[in-house]
Amino acid sequence: MNPRFEFTLHATDGKARTGVIRMRRGEIRTPAFMPVGTAATVKAMKPESVRAAGADIILGNTYHLMLRPGGERVARLGGLHKFMNWGRPILTDSGGYQVMSLSDLRKITEEGVTFASHLDGSRHLLTPERSMEIQRLLGSDIVMCFDECPKIDQGRDQIARSMEMSMRWARRSRDGFDSGGEHAENAALFGIQQGALDEGLRKASADALHDIGFDGYAIGGLAVGEGQEAMFATLDFAPGQLPADRPRYLMGVGKPDDLVGAVERGVDMFDCVLPTRSGRNGQAFTWSGPLNMRNARHAEDTSPIDERCACPTCHTYSRAYVHHLIRSGEILGAMLLTEHNVSFYQQLMQAMRDVIAESRFQAFARDFRRDYLRK
Amino acid sequence: MNPRFEFTLHATDGKARTGVIRMRRGEIRTPAFMPVGTAATVKAMKPESVRAAGADIILGNTYHLMLRPGGERVARLGGLHKFMNWGRPILTDSGGYQVMSLSDLRKITEEGVTFASHLDGSRHLLTPERSMEIQRLLGSDIVMCFDECPKIDQGRDQIARSMEMSMRWARRSRDGFDSGGEHAENAALFGIQQGALDEGLRKASADALHDIGFDGYAIGGLAVGEGQEAMFATLDFAPGQLPADRPRYLMGVGKPDDLVGAVERGVDMFDCVLPTRSGRNGQAFTWSGPLNMRNARHAEDTSPIDERCACPTCHTYSRAYVHHLIRSGEILGAMLLTEHNVSFYQQLMQAMRDVIAESRFQAFARDFRRDYLRK
Ligand SMILES: [Zn+2]
Ligand SMILES: [Zn+2]
Repeated sequence: MNPRFEFTLHATDGKARTGVIRMRRGEIRTPAFMPVGTAATVKAMKPESVRAAGADIILGNTYHLMLRPGGERVARLGGLHKFMNWGRPILTDSGGYQVMSLSDLRKITEEGVTFASHLDGSRHLLTPERSMEIQRLLGSDIVMCFDECPKIDQGRDQIARSMEMSMRWARRSRDGFDSGGEHAENAALFGIQQGALDEGLRKASADALHDIGFDGYAIGGLAVGEGQEAMFATLDFAPGQLPADRPRYLMGVGKPDDLVGAVERGVDMFDCVLPTRSGRNGQAFTWSGPLNMRNARHAEDTSPIDERCACPTCHTYSRAYVHHLIRSGEILGAMLLTEHNVSFYQQLMQAMRDVIAESRFQAFARDFRRDYLRK
Repeated sequence: MNPRFEFTLHATDGKARTGVIRMRRGEIRTPAFMPVGTAATVKAMKPESVRAAGADIILGNTYHLMLRPGGERVARLGGLHKFMNWGRPILTDSGGYQVMSLSDLRKITEEGVTFASHLDGSRHLLTPERSMEIQRLLGSDIVMCFDECPKIDQGRDQIARSMEMSMRWARRSRDGFDSGGEHAENAALFGIQQGALDEGLRKASADALHDIGFDGYAIGGLAVGEGQEAMFATLDFAPGQLPADRPRYLMGVGKPDDLVGAVERGVDMFDCVLPTRSGRNGQAFTWSGPLNMRNARHAEDTSPIDERCACPTCHTYSRAYVHHLIRSGEILGAMLLTEHNVSFYQQLMQAMRDVIAESRFQAFARDFRRDYLRK
């Protein structure tokens, strides 16, 4: 039987690391990018295509799933893996971030967050304990602590108070997770560092989490509007504050150049809606930068989206055809572009894993930025 | 090399027939159902899945394709087959029917139809000659004559005049097609019988088409609001008016029980948007009748859409999951339901081919109607 959770580093190159997480449902090669499967589906893709694209793990959103179809219902149907036909690891977020960004009538207290569903206005209370329970009902492999992600424009005192409450919630999350019986014996729990852009608060948060003890550590509260420069400045110190022998997960990131810059700074895991959402909006990621497939210049271009891409879309279809589908609002356009983007992200992660193992990450990052950012 | 066009009947059972059409790009087993690929895509399906579902041929819409991406552009890109990655036969309609139902500011003269595009208001003239040219530019395997499909509520004189003009247009279509050089040597041309519900007009139309001579004969002007009873009454005589040694194609039909009733009356080919459009709208076809997958009774049903269905959706996913996806407006819901419906239609056609070959069509049709219509 695979271990519950075991992280092995194979190589480091500067701060960049490559390794593998072994879990009951399979291995996760790091650095890893997790496609987002918000409502029990990676939008516009079948799970077998997500796997074929190279994904080892996907992310599910507790906020969406608790509202529809509901954690208890998913449990009655045999859990999220069976429900959506994805047998490999699933990481679920805690619901905390999306409650704050999507729901109505939020009220935050020490107990938790009271809110109204954006779907039907129904009232809910989400607490660390309830978040752990829902993630257990879903059958999550990597459970995230319930935390508060403060707005970026708040003062240091507010950021500090929010972070301190998140650390108390992390303790409650740990206790809630640990009381989960069989699930706790088979799943992992990650803590989430907060503290916005402040090095001292980040350090205090990291120490508090380390005292509690988690299988992995996430860097929360970034990619919320601070910009890439400020994010990278924070990533210059935040990963190093977390235990080196545990995976570090940068939540909600990001663009391809964000990923390269974050791996360069010691991050091991990522998730983001960008490849899937962009695919539905007509944007394609390539080694030469993003392309707007609506642009008329693609109308008679018989070349693939990316000459170097190994995905089924690039193997079979022209830019002209994808352009036609996107302009026509065809679902197949969203399907083909999503598959390309998800695959491109996985190819980018594989390339980073390879060059870290070969100690040539810096040259790769330089060439990548030259071609992708054209600078 | 495969023949240009060769129709072989393997068996008949009452008026029902089964056989095969051999063409350059492959065989078409009859009775055949052609999924509709309006804008160079069978909506929400990859072409390899359409083929895996059992389709031998798909239909493309000349009206949509002439407006976007344009016949000349498709030709420059290597033709419709290459553009959309479907190497097997494609039948294209003439554009006549959809010009009348979708475009604005239509004016019909003996010359043809002047209209404004529903996409951008641009003015176009579609004539028999231009329709043949566009279908040639697309690289169509089975080309349809340009005709007028009169409204069902018109008087006999108007129906007669319309049919007579369609017969003159059939002659011009024949001449236009035949002047198409290499394309004419590799493709087939079908005439279209008109005459609404009138047996005498249908006979006159059939005779006029037979005098011109076509590879196959379509029954047009049905499934336009007359109802199943009136359609079946017309199909009691119309197929028999057409040459027995040529395929008979009932355009734009239909529901599963329409297909069974039309095969019973001697029809060999069909097309309809119903399986694909219904799939996007949450309707599933099953051997026990249609299901509305939005219905709450499916919310915790772990059974497949149809226990007897061999499609990938039914093999892998529960009604509960499909229900969740449809309720959530997820693209994957449209993908899974479309694939089921397209596959279900192909399984229905295969079942009819089998029972005709075994001379037990009547028992099959009786059992089908008992289960599907529950009567
Ligand atoms: Zn690609
Ligand atoms: Zn099925």
